[in-house]
Amino acid sequence: MSSLDIPGLDALKAEVCALHAELLRWGLVAWTSGNVSARVPGHELMVIKPSGVSYDDLTPDKMIVADLDGNLVEGTLSPSSDTAAHAYVYRNMPEVGGVVHTHSPYATAWSAVAQPIPCAITAMGDEFGDDIPVGPFALIGDDSIGQGIVSTLKGHRSPAVLMRQHGVFTIGKNAKAAVKAAVMCEDVARTVHLARQLGPVARLDQADIDKLYDRYQNVYGQQAAQQPIEPQGVEA
Amino acid sequence: MSSLDIPGLDALKAEVCALHAELLRWGLVAWTSGNVSARVPGHELMVIKPSGVSYDDLTPDKMIVADLDGNLVEGTLSPSSDTAAHAYVYRNMPEVGGVVHTHSPYATAWSAVAQPIPCAITAMGDEFGDDIPVGPFALIGDDSIGQGIVSTLKGHRSPAVLMRQHGVFTIGKNAKAAVKAAVMCEDVARTVHLARQLGPVARLDQADIDKLYDRYQNVYGQQAAQQPIEPQGVEA
Amino acid sequence: MSSLDIPGLDALKAEVCALHAELLRWGLVAWTSGNVSARVPGHELMVIKPSGVSYDDLTPDKMIVADLDGNLVEGTLSPSSDTAAHAYVYRNMPEVGGVVHTHSPYATAWSAVAQPIPCAITAMGDEFGDDIPVGPFALIGDDSIGQGIVSTLKGHRSPAVLMRQHGVFTIGKNAKAAVKAAVMCEDVARTVHLARQLGPVARLDQADIDKLYDRYQNVYGQQAAQQPIEPQGVEA
Amino acid sequence: MSSLDIPGLDALKAEVCALHAELLRWGLVAWTSGNVSARVPGHELMVIKPSGVSYDDLTPDKMIVADLDGNLVEGTLSPSSDTAAHAYVYRNMPEVGGVVHTHSPYATAWSAVAQPIPCAITAMGDEFGDDIPVGPFALIGDDSIGQGIVSTLKGHRSPAVLMRQHGVFTIGKNAKAAVKAAVMCEDVARTVHLARQLGPVARLDQADIDKLYDRYQNVYGQQAAQQPIEPQGVEA
Repeated sequence: MSSLDIPGLDALKAEVCALHAELLRWGLVAWTSGNVSARVPGHELMVIKPSGVSYDDLTPDKMIVADLDGNLVEGTLSPSSDTAAHAYVYRNMPEVGGVVHTHSPYATAWSAVAQPIPCAITAMGDEFGDDIPVGPFALIGDDSIGQGIVSTLKGHRSPAVLMRQHGVFTIGKNAKAAVKAAVMCEDVARTVHLARQLGPVARLDQADIDKLYDRYQNVYGQQAAQQPIEPQGVEA
Repeated sequence: MSSLDIPGLDALKAEVCALHAELLRWGLVAWTSGNVSARVPGHELMVIKPSGVSYDDLTPDKMIVADLDGNLVEGTLSPSSDTAAHAYVYRNMPEVGGVVHTHSPYATAWSAVAQPIPCAITAMGDEFGDDIPVGPFALIGDDSIGQGIVSTLKGHRSPAVLMRQHGVFTIGKNAKAAVKAAVMCEDVARTVHLARQLGPVARLDQADIDKLYDRYQNVYGQQAAQQPIEPQGVEA
Repeated sequence: MSSLDIPGLDALKAEVCALHAELLRWGLVAWTSGNVSARVPGHELMVIKPSGVSYDDLTPDKMIVADLDGNLVEGTLSPSSDTAAHAYVYRNMPEVGGVVHTHSPYATAWSAVAQPIPCAITAMGDEFGDDIPVGPFALIGDDSIGQGIVSTLKGHRSPAVLMRQHGVFTIGKNAKAAVKAAVMCEDVARTVHLARQLGPVARLDQADIDKLYDRYQNVYGQQAAQQPIEPQGVEA
Repeated sequence: MSSLDIPGLDALKAEVCALHAELLRWGLVAWTSGNVSARVPGHELMVIKPSGVSYDDLTPDKMIVADLDGNLVEGTLSPSSDTAAHAYVYRNMPEVGGVVHTHSPYATAWSAVAQPIPCAITAMGDEFGDDIPVGPFALIGDDSIGQGIVSTLKGHRSPAVLMRQHGVFTIGKNAKAAVKAAVMCEDVARTVHLARQLGPVARLDQADIDKLYDRYQNVYGQQAAQQPIEPQGVEA
């Protein structure tokens, strides 16, 4: 149990821990190559995966609490090497409650050729409301990756960015929403890739994308479940 | 238990609920992106998935009963956002007892380039009796999708339609048959896609397609299991 | 338990039943689209899957015993619709103890364009000793498929044939060996397909293929397990 | 239990046995087509898979102990047919504590066309520090494969080699590290293959590759877990 006096922190650790299993389940990660974090609501803190630990070995008590400069606050292991990128997003996008990073294969393939995924199917209109954009190439080690994510996604409808020759970062109002965006990003990256092998892929009309996006964001799903209550339990 | 006085309704809810696991098992869906429904035999009603609920969380008592205009009759959650499309099919194709919708990746790739899947392998002759056709582009929100499905499939042998830049709808005499059609549609969409990467794909001769289709519809399988008895239990 | 007075028949039914799970496990089948059979040693009989029954529902007592003309000898369900093809192989290739049929996706893609899989990697030299050949297009319903299998595989090293625009048949000294050939056929069909997308694929030198094939057939594996003792238990 | 008087040998057998499950889990092998070995620290010995035994049937007591000329020292089964290649690596690369061999599909596809995988994504810079190189074509039966592995990997940053028209060998400080390299090799082989279908793939700048490789080898992960203590337990 956390020694920090923050109600709900243990539940948030358990949720972030459990969401890593979704990365495995949907084929987004190999070995230890992806991570999920969540903002601790009302605090300048985040919960994030420890570095280099296999998904089988993750337990809630191994999750790291870090401040929004990426410094370790609670935990006996080192935080994910991507902690600085997650922290930069939380510092600069206050509406974001969850961040996910993967090298999921189809989405990373688009990133490797620096091509945005065209908004060619209705599922992309729904979830992304636009093409999925490409962010700059950036090396790990300072704020470059974080800056690339934020500069690409700020003001963009898409919760996913393809960081050039690297992989995917997704954001959401909470960690579960960011995981959903990562799952959908790989799904549409694959579908549009497969379509490209068959022939030219046409973007949807902008007016249709606008209608799809507006409807999905405002009508789809169970409304009660869409209230911005954070942290939200993992439905499983 | 249902408070509606309809014999077999609880069993039908359990069957439709269980069939969603087949969508996951055969790789047809990501996150919550597919749904199954069944007509309630002898009533102007259907059983359908609630909207935005993950497959892990589905239980028979969460399934929705709606009328054939898509209005909620029983259930505490909102019905699937695709309910109007399912309802339109049931209203206009009385022989249909089950409907499935997915964005399965290979089939949706064909839909994204608006190309029918050519009837190039015997498994397609068996199950589809023809090319798998492309339906029109249609937005969610009114009867456009339902009209597109019905206008494409009415009088067509294929139980599957590729709705342009959207995904797949399949129909069947019951929900299980519609799920089978969705599984086979993705399977042949993949095989013919892979074949196209190797070289030109030739359609089978029409006379051979006719023989395959006739035999499969009338001879294949256990005859007792093919009687039009609905609802049919999920074999599992 | 079987009412036929044949020692080992119940064990053979259990083995053939269990081997169907391997088709699922290695991704060779969708829904009910593949089947395994075994010759009953010392009798003019075979054990084969019932028609149209899902893999989850298969139990040893549901397996069919048929004679080598495909007639039902024991069992309450209809035999697989591919029974005639299996039977033809057993009648005409006395060295064959097991037959498998699938529509596995990569192998069926090669069959759809009527291209043999070139023997381009050492694993193909080991298991197939040659290209995997294409058999003729043949319709179900008489001995055409069986004749196509036998005319292609008789005198050929490959235990697998790609029946044109249809799927794969494999043979083996027993059912397990035929299942292994089906697994390896799909594996190499995929690898060589993927290689073709990268550039021209070169066949191995014939002398190297000969050395690989000779060594693998005579040296590889545990020699005790390679004695032609049939039926052989499923190692699992 | 081993009758050899070597502390930790039973634990090492259990570890090598368990690591074979990782080959299955990450989709690197079909049927029995891959193997893992580990050097026995302080002895001229290795632990390796028996030949032709299915992964389901592997138990720690079935694992083979062989000397570094490939001769059987302990075990009732025949050692893997790849034992000579593993042994050659251990004899000639004293820093290597683990070796893995697979025919994983995407990596083997690159090997089939004799093309190195270009270091085009940051995950490759991290783990491989360079392109993944192609080794010579070599037949099984003598030291040719071992020589090809060692001549390619000696002095190379990459722990993986694509043996031409054959498959992958990876090395590591211990067996787990070699398995990780095999998993990452297939992952990046797939991603770069998918990228190539979308357009030309650019190698990263050498200076960036150098920075990525240096950081990953020296900073990533939990430092305690990176100490060269062997054998290391399987985290699971």
